[in-house]
Amino acid sequence: MKLISSKDNPFYKRLKLLAQSSHQRRRTGQTLLEGVHLADAYLGAVGQPLACVVAEPALHDPEVAAIWARVEDSLRVCLPETLFEPLSTLVNGVALVFLIDMPAGHLPKRQTTDCVILDAVQDAGNVGSILRTAAAAGVRDVFCTSGTALCWSSKVLRAGMGAHFMLNIVEHCPADALAPRLGVPLLATSLQAQTSLYGQDLRRPVAWVFGNEGAGVSQAWLDRIETPVRIPQPGGMESLNVAACAAICLFEAVRQRDEA
Amino acid sequence: MKLISSKDNPFYKRLKLLAQSSHQRRRTGQTLLEGVHLADAYLGAVGQPLACVVAEPALHDPEVAAIWARVEDSLRVCLPETLFEPLSTLVNGVALVFLIDMPAGHLPKRQTTDCVILDAVQDAGNVGSILRTAAAAGVRDVFCTSGTALCWSSKVLRAGMGAHFMLNIVEHCPADALAPRLGVPLLATSLQAQTSLYGQDLRRPVAWVFGNEGAGVSQAWLDRIETPVRIPQPGGMESLNVAACAAICLFEAVRQRDEA
Repeated sequence: MKLISSKDNPFYKRLKLLAQSSHQRRRTGQTLLEGVHLADAYLGAVGQPLACVVAEPALHDPEVAAIWARVEDSLRVCLPETLFEPLSTLVNGVALVFLIDMPAGHLPKRQTTDCVILDAVQDAGNVGSILRTAAAAGVRDVFCTSGTALCWSSKVLRAGMGAHFMLNIVEHCPADALAPRLGVPLLATSLQAQTSLYGQDLRRPVAWVFGNEGAGVSQAWLDRIETPVRIPQPGGMESLNVAACAAICLFEAVRQRDEA
Repeated sequence: MKLISSKDNPFYKRLKLLAQSSHQRRRTGQTLLEGVHLADAYLGAVGQPLACVVAEPALHDPEVAAIWARVEDSLRVCLPETLFEPLSTLVNGVALVFLIDMPAGHLPKRQTTDCVILDAVQDAGNVGSILRTAAAAGVRDVFCTSGTALCWSSKVLRAGMGAHFMLNIVEHCPADALAPRLGVPLLATSLQAQTSLYGQDLRRPVAWVFGNEGAGVSQAWLDRIETPVRIPQPGGMESLNVAACAAICLFEAVRQRDEA
């Protein structure tokens, strides 16, 4: 176990930079996971972090102690509470963070299984919710265009609830690079579409594009859609949140495969 | 049209209080709708507001001008930009707000159509998304327990995108008052349930309970559930955001009715 008590400690200074800057996260390829739930999910799905950093008083919390006990001693770092504070964005959160390498994500030569494409989805809560839905539905690959919220930011990590560690996430993925690799039909929802989602055969693997909250799916992707599908909306509201829309589409595939 | 130029104007002071305090919203039964989209939805679904308040320079914005033109002249209020600022929570939003009466919502003697019960759903984004999903799915009645985020707050209004005006929303609704009035089966999702959502007959009207993000459905409601249902989650994540869960459940009913 390492004890850090000075704010001038170089390792501590690195942590603080990571906590405060997503530029720094991108530059170093590392990020912080905040709180017990994400740490537990990481240990279960991936393994040991680069470091487990805890505010000293938090070691008396049984949930924190349980995580601490699962981390190799050489990776444990203990700080006084005042030093820990700038490392966390959680207001009343538990004082534990993991330092991890952000998984790089790989663009496959040819995508022949289900995938989700996030096309400038900008709200962190929506991106996190869609990652969580994808992981639950059994989708493994998520490709994000440049306008999409940074998946490894603390807000998206929090909303993802550990889904990140079950997914291959590729960020800053241009349509031109991804589209030619798709070996599965490309689908998106549209209010103008003729085909109902429920009439679409989703037992085979498909790629879903979900677009920006305001502008919808961009032209670069729209031009490539094979079959736009309509989610029937009998209430006359004619509008769904993008994460709700993703949940309906991805779980309609779960239902059809369940039935098959 | 009224022109207000003093921050001591009594009507202006009332608006400012409403903008800053949800206590004030509850006390007066009035709230503010921010931005063009909500104003447009309100005019379409309900009618004239109590007042349409605009920052003078925003009148040059064609979207604002279009709303302004639809409001009766006696209800139009124009302010200098500096006075408008404290009225809005939107950072780069369009400088237009509607003052409206919050619809009271009515608890029916006997609920025989679809409804949604929000049981301490605390995230404003989730509540807004579920209201939007309910309105799109054709559900008309939403009952909220006391721990649920205030539906007429600016965040929930924003996430609801106008759904509020298509719904009968009853807040601070205790289980004891609501449960005896339910003339439809009460459903909730549970990871432990035996019955799959997809095996459940949803062609008849039902009541769905959706619970708190952390704690799930409370005991008071759990005790009353007729059939807990499981959403199959082949990805092994075993967890969905509550708004995603609501979208899957409410639209499975849409699908079954569409097919029938």
